[in-house]
Amino acid sequence: MPAISKKGIGMPASPIRKLVPYADAAKKRGTKVYHLNIGQPDLETPKAFWDKLAHLDMKVLEYCPSDGIASYKAKFSQYYNSIGIKTDPSNFIITNGGSEALLFTMMSCIDEGEEVIIPEPMYANYIGFAASGNIKVKPIPCNIENGFALPAISEFEKLIDTHTKAILICNPNNPTGYLYSKEELETLRQLVLKHDLYLFVDEVYREFIYDDRPHFSALNLEGLEQNVVVIDSISKRFSACGARVGAIVTRNKEVLSSAMKFAQARLSPPSLGQIAGESLFDLGTDYYSGIKREYKHRRDLMVKLLNEIPGVKCPMPGGAFYAVAQLPVPDTDSFCQWMLESFSYEGATVMMAPASGFYATPNTGKNEVRIAYVLNENDLTKAIECLKEGLRQYTAANPAIKNLKSEIV
Amino acid sequence: MPAISKKGIGMPASPIRKLVPYADAAKKRGTKVYHLNIGQPDLETPKAFWDKLAHLDMKVLEYCPSDGIASYKAKFSQYYNSIGIKTDPSNFIITNGGSEALLFTMMSCIDEGEEVIIPEPMYANYIGFAASGNIKVKPIPCNIENGFALPAISEFEKLIDTHTKAILICNPNNPTGYLYSKEELETLRQLVLKHDLYLFVDEVYREFIYDDRPHFSALNLEGLEQNVVVIDSISKRFSACGARVGAIVTRNKEVLSSAMKFAQARLSPPSLGQIAGESLFDLGTDYYSGIKREYKHRRDLMVKLLNEIPGVKCPMPGGAFYAVAQLPVPDTDSFCQWMLESFSYEGATVMMAPASGFYATPNTGKNEVRIAYVLNENDLTKAIECLKEGLRQYTAANPAIKNLKSEIV
Repeated sequence: MPAISKKGIGMPASPIRKLVPYADAAKKRGTKVYHLNIGQPDLETPKAFWDKLAHLDMKVLEYCPSDGIASYKAKFSQYYNSIGIKTDPSNFIITNGGSEALLFTMMSCIDEGEEVIIPEPMYANYIGFAASGNIKVKPIPCNIENGFALPAISEFEKLIDTHTKAILICNPNNPTGYLYSKEELETLRQLVLKHDLYLFVDEVYREFIYDDRPHFSALNLEGLEQNVVVIDSISKRFSACGARVGAIVTRNKEVLSSAMKFAQARLSPPSLGQIAGESLFDLGTDYYSGIKREYKHRRDLMVKLLNEIPGVKCPMPGGAFYAVAQLPVPDTDSFCQWMLESFSYEGATVMMAPASGFYATPNTGKNEVRIAYVLNENDLTKAIECLKEGLRQYTAANPAIKNLKSEIV
Repeated sequence: MPAISKKGIGMPASPIRKLVPYADAAKKRGTKVYHLNIGQPDLETPKAFWDKLAHLDMKVLEYCPSDGIASYKAKFSQYYNSIGIKTDPSNFIITNGGSEALLFTMMSCIDEGEEVIIPEPMYANYIGFAASGNIKVKPIPCNIENGFALPAISEFEKLIDTHTKAILICNPNNPTGYLYSKEELETLRQLVLKHDLYLFVDEVYREFIYDDRPHFSALNLEGLEQNVVVIDSISKRFSACGARVGAIVTRNKEVLSSAMKFAQARLSPPSLGQIAGESLFDLGTDYYSGIKREYKHRRDLMVKLLNEIPGVKCPMPGGAFYAVAQLPVPDTDSFCQWMLESFSYEGATVMMAPASGFYATPNTGKNEVRIAYVLNENDLTKAIECLKEGLRQYTAANPAIKNLKSEIV
């Protein structure tokens, strides 16, 4: 039997999805599973999207251009211009979700053995995309005590060497929810100019901001036209994750033309998601303020309820729809699995993403989980009650954990 | 300005799509362009697909499981069983088109610096996928004189060394249309067992066979359960290229579990194409015999018309909807560009894929093109008339080419 590749062996399993078999088994036993593990919004995909699909006047579902359907790109560029980010359609390559945008960006800019610096905890799949290109991730630790703010520039300077090609941030952040300020982005601007680095910014949660501060796009950083590549997607913005329509956005023509070769090799992104997705950019600002209101409400509720549980600590996220919370257990991988395998409360349990997979540094974040607040108020309340009871039983059953708990408290 | 990656520089531009800007310019000048360059069938996507989209009863377009929607996998497995290939849903990972299936298969099985042997001319994007994993393609030359049949096993043996991990074929073949026989597959079976190699077989054109010989799937080769990985897609079978729904099919659990990690990193394949695509497997054998009849008619017409042009040689393809034809010009890259840039006949021109991009060996196939017979009889006839006139003018304008032409004839 031929061996599988070292790369295949080294690929990390998704911390967001690796517990799926346990969740499936729980469901088979009749246990309701509250999914706080995945950024799958429960909000409805706007009616305009479904209406478009219901009235397609097409005969052949053709490949589209490798960089996306021209009319979709035009609408997308208009949306960018409407939020004050000057672009034209040539600045975009449409991709199979934000995932492929990230993969193509990394592949186009970074070679095997070269490095990308990413604040950690980080979106777990960044590690996967880097691994699939044999690109080294250099994590830079953030701190739960200041809500996972951008580390000091001096900490970045310590990590930068001749192999460093890029810095990658997600703003607002998945998994921490941290919203990077204009000032923080300006310090990164200085840094990437000084060291001639790329700055990749994942801005798929751009509209999900719950404080009064506006989102500041890296595309508006002056003098970084050749350095900044933004990752975008309609998945979260419009609750359209299954459409798989993302984008690379940059003014760097060389990056675009390199990424275009990867795009041509896979022929085209999905046509249907783009065709129906075009309509979404006509929804206007009312749509965004509606979802914002809903998620802000959930965030406030969730953070309050979590921090009321003994031993749990959860900083207030500024955006996106995630938070990283510290739990009074030594190993959330075991705890999250136990919640699915061996626990239920009033017929239900909770699925969360163990945070260890969001850290590139081994054995870090073991007592943290990522929680996505993608459930309505009622379900979210029940889910956190369920988590509270789970923690009570789990720590009660294990005196060693009880001691740990009292140490933490 | 930071440098782009060596990998990005090394990625080949798609020979199928690189002439697109010239075609666009021709269309802007009002010239009709007959597209023989891309495997985009003109046949209608079946009504069942559009009907399903018109009557979706969904609220949220969610991510689907990373390996695809369970009900789609079940239908797909039933289709495999119905054509005599024993599978169950666990043998499939649904992907973003056949492209991603190939990429994940290569990444899961072959490391940087290791090699895959591929008969050439080969589907151009195989070279691209290999390049994106820094995998070395070792081409094994086929011969237009015998219709691009499988080279002798002794020729394979010469290429196999300790770095060789896999052999990849496309059956029936894109770009040559060659249909590998059961006997040829049996010889490959011996070879991969002897050297403990993977055998990757792209079978997306499985139903497109125009002679009396049946298609023989590599999945039915005895004793190769751990070696064979089949690539599949609904794109060609159902004229649904824009759906982007492909699959990895294998009985090798390690390959599946490795590919699943790449699949998890990109979250999920497109949901809509799977939801609407499920209905397609109920179409029955009448559907397949209808498309077969149509393509057989086109093939016969095209091969006849091509071989009537002075200096053109085109072997009779056994399947798929492509042929590689030799033209009486020294460099089809220049000729195909000239056809789009500087030529029109009765207001039209023809776009073809220069074959050089289908050869991994440099400076090979320079006088060949890949032609996809994806136009109806009338358009196909006009397109080849147009090509004939183009060749007449091109060779007449250049005495050096005329000499070459008479040498070839």
